[in-house]
Amino acid sequence: MKIQLQSIGTIHSPYLPGLPIPHQPPENAPGEFWITLDPEYQAGLDQLLTYRYLYVFFYLDQIKENINLHIHPSWAPEIEVGIFASRSPKRPNPIGLSIVELKGIEGNEILISGIDVYNGTPLLDLKPYIRAIDLKSDANDGWFDQLQDKDHLVAHMLGLQHEHEHEHTHVHNQEHSHKQAHHTHVPSSPKLSRSLRVTSKKTSQK
Amino acid sequence: MKIQLQSIGTIHSPYLPGLPIPHQPPENAPGEFWITLDPEYQAGLDQLLTYRYLYVFFYLDQIKENINLHIHPSWAPEIEVGIFASRSPKRPNPIGLSIVELKGIEGNEILISGIDVYNGTPLLDLKPYIRAIDLKSDANDGWFDQLQDKDHLVAHMLGLQHEHEHEHTHVHNQEHSHKQAHHTHVPSSPKLSRSLRVTSKKTSQK
Repeated sequence: MKIQLQSIGTIHSPYLPGLPIPHQPPENAPGEFWITLDPEYQAGLDQLLTYRYLYVFFYLDQIKENINLHIHPSWAPEIEVGIFASRSPKRPNPIGLSIVELKGIEGNEILISGIDVYNGTPLLDLKPYIRAIDLKSDANDGWFDQLQDKDHLVAHMLGLQHEHEHEHTHVHNQEHSHKQAHHTHVPSSPKLSRSLRVTSKKTSQK
Repeated sequence: MKIQLQSIGTIHSPYLPGLPIPHQPPENAPGEFWITLDPEYQAGLDQLLTYRYLYVFFYLDQIKENINLHIHPSWAPEIEVGIFASRSPKRPNPIGLSIVELKGIEGNEILISGIDVYNGTPLLDLKPYIRAIDLKSDANDGWFDQLQDKDHLVAHMLGLQHEHEHEHTHVHNQEHSHKQAHHTHVPSSPKLSRSLRVTSKKTSQK
């Protein structure tokens, strides 16, 4: 079934196509981030500002490569996971989703916290992040939970300031091309346990 | 900009088009819920089962009505909010998003907890819900927070068992057509404070 959508606005960020970009919405990212909603939809923003967080849906228009059903995660390139167990952009339908903080609304412009998209990315939808529905207090981190040095990798993924064993402190952001494969302070490849390879934990539900 | 996507599978639920349906993924919903991924994408499910929760993206193919930029929420029909401040399906791009629990994977079939879609809904994407990224502990409930009787309305929205002042206990699920407008135990329309009408809380960010 073919499905036709349309962009309804544009996302603005300091990240230029072809240059390095964060892999997740960066906390306290430097630079300006905002969304220009096409003016005909502006009335649809009423009451949005009562929410602290937003889901931003976008079209990954810069993905030129063919999709892969398996990918090597940016933060753990030594393993391989299915595309649906990852947030990699090279997926069958190139829909991106990021959660951002809502900072303000001026007419048809929406000021947001850092978002991991290239400048000019087409907007598909905005939905409120609703605490009662979307905050899953018992959520886990999937295969990430089984990686050695998980906390360190999460800090990198989120662009959080953290310390390394060789005792310097840094923040990873868009000015820092972060090729994990060449990252010397990461421990040697963790061997994933066989338990990661299971494909079913339960065959029926009550 | 026109964007072409494709369905990559089908979502199965007990909810038939044209009949009542929950407005959010129902907790402990009776019935069977599963996703049939088109077989050519099956390899993309590897490692997905390590996650407890999934984002399910779908195409709202049963929405025939024209979109509205303002809607009356199902749980608070006396107020009006912009479409982007709601999860109403009648939106410019009919992309649905629900978070479900992952129960098991058998080949190209994915067993899930209750989902608020009609049987036969086209699947667009699956992404893991990642605790480190998606759990926003300081999220709020937006305009919902300002409603009288908020906790009661949230319980209805989520299909949770709860008590009413007139002292009976019930669970709302798909067998119960839930037209809030005719719901006699709900207090008279809360008057939204003027503060809900603000359209900017901050005009710049640091």
